[in-house]
Amino acid sequence: MFLEKINTLKDLRDMDPAEMNQLAGEIRQYLTEVVSRTGGHLASNLGVVELTIALHYVFNTPEDKIIWDVGHQCYTHKILTERRNRFETLRQDGGISGFPSRKESPYDVFDTGHASNSISIAVGLSEATKKSHNNSKIIAVIGDGSLTGGMAFEALNHAGHLKSGIIVVLNDNEMSISKNIGALSAHLNKIMTGEFVSNIREEIKGRIKNLPGFGNRVYKAARHLEEVIKGLITPGMLFETLGFTYVGPVDGHNLNHLLDNLKNIRRLKGPVLIHVITKKGRGYNHAEDNPARFHGISTFEVTTGMCKASACTYTDVFGDTIIELARKDEKIVAITAAMGLGTGLDRFSSLFPDRFYDIGIAEQHGITFAAALALGGYRPFVAIYSTFLQRAYDQIILDVCLQNLPVVFAVDRSGIVGQDGPTHHGVFDISYFRHIPNVTVMSPKDENELRHMLYTAYLLQKPAVVRYPRGETQGVIMDETFKEIPLGRWERLKEGKDIAVIACGNTVWPALSAAVELESHGIHCCVVNGRFIKPMDGEMLVALASEVPRVLTVEENVLAGGFGSAVMEFFSEEGITIPVKRLGIPDVFLPHGSQYNLRKSIGIDKEGIKRFIQKWLGTA
Amino acid sequence: MFLEKINTLKDLRDMDPAEMNQLAGEIRQYLTEVVSRTGGHLASNLGVVELTIALHYVFNTPEDKIIWDVGHQCYTHKILTERRNRFETLRQDGGISGFPSRKESPYDVFDTGHASNSISIAVGLSEATKKSHNNSKIIAVIGDGSLTGGMAFEALNHAGHLKSGIIVVLNDNEMSISKNIGALSAHLNKIMTGEFVSNIREEIKGRIKNLPGFGNRVYKAARHLEEVIKGLITPGMLFETLGFTYVGPVDGHNLNHLLDNLKNIRRLKGPVLIHVITKKGRGYNHAEDNPARFHGISTFEVTTGMCKASACTYTDVFGDTIIELARKDEKIVAITAAMGLGTGLDRFSSLFPDRFYDIGIAEQHGITFAAALALGGYRPFVAIYSTFLQRAYDQIILDVCLQNLPVVFAVDRSGIVGQDGPTHHGVFDISYFRHIPNVTVMSPKDENELRHMLYTAYLLQKPAVVRYPRGETQGVIMDETFKEIPLGRWERLKEGKDIAVIACGNTVWPALSAAVELESHGIHCCVVNGRFIKPMDGEMLVALASEVPRVLTVEENVLAGGFGSAVMEFFSEEGITIPVKRLGIPDVFLPHGSQYNLRKSIGIDKEGIKRFIQKWLGTA
Repeated sequence: MFLEKINTLKDLRDMDPAEMNQLAGEIRQYLTEVVSRTGGHLASNLGVVELTIALHYVFNTPEDKIIWDVGHQCYTHKILTERRNRFETLRQDGGISGFPSRKESPYDVFDTGHASNSISIAVGLSEATKKSHNNSKIIAVIGDGSLTGGMAFEALNHAGHLKSGIIVVLNDNEMSISKNIGALSAHLNKIMTGEFVSNIREEIKGRIKNLPGFGNRVYKAARHLEEVIKGLITPGMLFETLGFTYVGPVDGHNLNHLLDNLKNIRRLKGPVLIHVITKKGRGYNHAEDNPARFHGISTFEVTTGMCKASACTYTDVFGDTIIELARKDEKIVAITAAMGLGTGLDRFSSLFPDRFYDIGIAEQHGITFAAALALGGYRPFVAIYSTFLQRAYDQIILDVCLQNLPVVFAVDRSGIVGQDGPTHHGVFDISYFRHIPNVTVMSPKDENELRHMLYTAYLLQKPAVVRYPRGETQGVIMDETFKEIPLGRWERLKEGKDIAVIACGNTVWPALSAAVELESHGIHCCVVNGRFIKPMDGEMLVALASEVPRVLTVEENVLAGGFGSAVMEFFSEEGITIPVKRLGIPDVFLPHGSQYNLRKSIGIDKEGIKRFIQKWLGTA
Repeated sequence: MFLEKINTLKDLRDMDPAEMNQLAGEIRQYLTEVVSRTGGHLASNLGVVELTIALHYVFNTPEDKIIWDVGHQCYTHKILTERRNRFETLRQDGGISGFPSRKESPYDVFDTGHASNSISIAVGLSEATKKSHNNSKIIAVIGDGSLTGGMAFEALNHAGHLKSGIIVVLNDNEMSISKNIGALSAHLNKIMTGEFVSNIREEIKGRIKNLPGFGNRVYKAARHLEEVIKGLITPGMLFETLGFTYVGPVDGHNLNHLLDNLKNIRRLKGPVLIHVITKKGRGYNHAEDNPARFHGISTFEVTTGMCKASACTYTDVFGDTIIELARKDEKIVAITAAMGLGTGLDRFSSLFPDRFYDIGIAEQHGITFAAALALGGYRPFVAIYSTFLQRAYDQIILDVCLQNLPVVFAVDRSGIVGQDGPTHHGVFDISYFRHIPNVTVMSPKDENELRHMLYTAYLLQKPAVVRYPRGETQGVIMDETFKEIPLGRWERLKEGKDIAVIACGNTVWPALSAAVELESHGIHCCVVNGRFIKPMDGEMLVALASEVPRVLTVEENVLAGGFGSAVMEFFSEEGITIPVKRLGIPDVFLPHGSQYNLRKSIGIDKEGIKRFIQKWLGTA
């Protein structure tokens, strides 16, 4: 066992390639075992075992710096950099994060989580090291999926302009850029990275110029030669156009090739891109066969690859509902950003392939594309996680809401997401949506209401948001037919004279349970389902202010500018003075952990709501 | 005079090229005259006169659809599409907009304003027309500057994937993509667009394969050929890699070439990109000499090209202050997104060229680049207009604030910007910044305070925002030395027992003036400069609540989630019940118009504040 010997990077750097190869196999098995118990990102991590080993072997980390784009592929990196002993606490409350974390280790350069920003980070750090006359090498490891994010292109463009000394490792595991590149041999590319390349280039340049048919007809001929060449070396051309030296493709599971190429690259100047071909899920047959399912996975049984039978989720209900709606209106189309499975659109995409758009990791384009489809008479539903939709905030304002176009935003994973932590919590969306004119914002208390809200959003013919949480539904009975929910109308769930509790989204049921329990303590709460965040139910708010002496709002969103603030804004507009208190997420970035524990820690679970009311009413 | 005859597009389509050429000259003169009186975007409009004529001549608008990226270059388009008679009302209150406006004309396809989204719009519209079996051509006109925005790349990538039938007109007026492309002759490119191209391609392909030295060595040789070719046709390669047919470059001031090429392109299938070379400011010598100054300009004298001596602006004060700070600390660097002049960094860039980064229209990359520079020990000041910074909302949250890095955001053009209208008002920034953990948000009442705030932001060593308005300063006396403003401390400007008016930023002086005038009406206002939006001055708020019976907040930001809401949130947290009312921007997109009139219309000028207080106190 080599894995047991890895305590610091020195232990790795003392190994020979054969030993490292064996280590890779052991890490793979260990990853599979641990993730089967903790859940997490498996397929991507299995794909970069050799690459991670080779990078830490060749580069002098942590002086040299590796930035992991998205960051979900950092497990081997964590094992190699002094966290092997804590690896089994992965993603658990109080355990190590599933993403790079500066607090956790000096080897974690940046807390990444969203895609496509690693090259920008590398360019900035490289510029800082250059200015400081520091020789650290800066390496960004980015997947081919992340490269579809425009931000990555912005950074490549700037790196070329600055002649930045960065190394970009393109971890190409889906061939999504170009299938034909795989035809080139690793041998050729190994030669290309060597020091004698420039000499050969000059020589061949000279020879080309003297080929028959060139000379003064060079422009025309060159134009067509390009067409021929393009089929062979497309990705290289793209990057070289932007000022990068392109190296590759390299087999990302061949340690010897990786080591040779990385050693050569270490000596090159200016921006370099090395194209590494890897296989998601490598070495674990179930993950190789179904990398999408093993991208982010809950606990599973290693031998069979099966998860325990999972309960119905909000995502499932969205997926079913949009199919039902799409059957009624052929103008309905669905858009997702590289998250077909995660957002529940996989079945839709099979049933209506012509009405499904996976625009890749490109939320900005996706939103404006949706706006234009709406302008052209279609009815786009955009399903993107709350946290990733932050990328398209400007496009939501200008391209959807200013134009007042009927785009439905299905905002999945809103609120606390749990183990993925601070980069993934969807806790800002109420605040960033509700200040935009023309938009309607809703959040359902349960899956039955989610269904009706999607229908209501569809009927609105204006920009509409439906936000719903990650995870299991409430298990309520589903209505058979769709119901339109009257715009801006809330729902009274319980009467009570002591306090009105207006809860929003997934905090409604806990609030109601708290209220029911408080009855036996002699506290009578009126409970309202504040299902419209915008517009609010002004009539009900006015009525409540005359019925109860105080109002408590509950939401799973940051308190600043959130649902509770909107309630206070309404009272202010109406000149109603009534004590309002708010429960929600305080002004900090929440860590990773279980949804249950995180909700408990900030007091928005049933017990927390109960305790807060008792304390406020002086009966605790 | 041909211009006078242009009432509808039929009048244009009846002309011959010689007449159109003469028309172009007349339009140029007319544009210069009108913009000299109204202010506006001149240089970019002078650059696209022939291109606009040719597009409307060749394409059957409005069935065919032209989308203007950014939209500031749409003046000739407006003149040709039935708005010649109203053109002199350009950007005036109640007049026609300086940007495309769907409300204004069926020829205006989309209300653009921010860069780089035109290709996304085109892809969406093209997909909608394809699904509807409609044959409309969809054309996006995008500048080379806008092409640096990652969103444009996302859209190109998606267009290639969809084999979308769009036409992208690359209006290359700065040669920023590649200087050497200009060397190719227009003649060659004209041939390339003809129908016989594909035949030639096949023929040459065959010939290449039989060239000596190829055959089984094709991979190696091709690799090097590419290097030779690249120098000649770089932009084409880039776009063809993404699945586009590349046509060009074409002289954008040669109407005959434009017409021939556009006619050819009209017949091509799949995504096409035509590369048009134009000159900003074309035909007006002052604008040709200094296109940056004539990009967006206020009124000027046509003969001399001079603006009337302009008063000092907040932008000027920022520009001076950062130079002063940079002299004290060599770690200070400045970053802007293609707005060196607009953000006042031009002098900085001359004095400290190595410490100035213009990252192009790439706000997302710019923010993360800044974060990484901060991580590397530098002190970046990022100067971006409020409205454009919306593009980087996600990067602000994750890459700056989650990492708690000392980036200073100099948020220029916050609040109402005036004539540029709804796509440019910076009215969301208080709301979108203050709900992010770890950030400090400030807004100065005048230029002297701006100076101290920038210094204070610099000292903070944490993410810090200073938001300041477009336009002239207050003309106050400037302190000679820098002063650190105590974190979260507000400033009492006037005592008064009837009401506390807490104003923010540029509404402070109007609020104070209103309060002074109200004294003579027997109303005694306490006036507070709420200079910290986050954190707030809790001590002062508690004190005020015990001194006065009511609070009015004033801000130039949307009311939803804004400054006033933050005041109410504080009172709620503290359990203080006091009537609060708020003045600010209501829940609509404000139109274009003068800042003066827009402020007046929503009642946040001195008179509006006075009137509101009188009414609230029942003395009006």
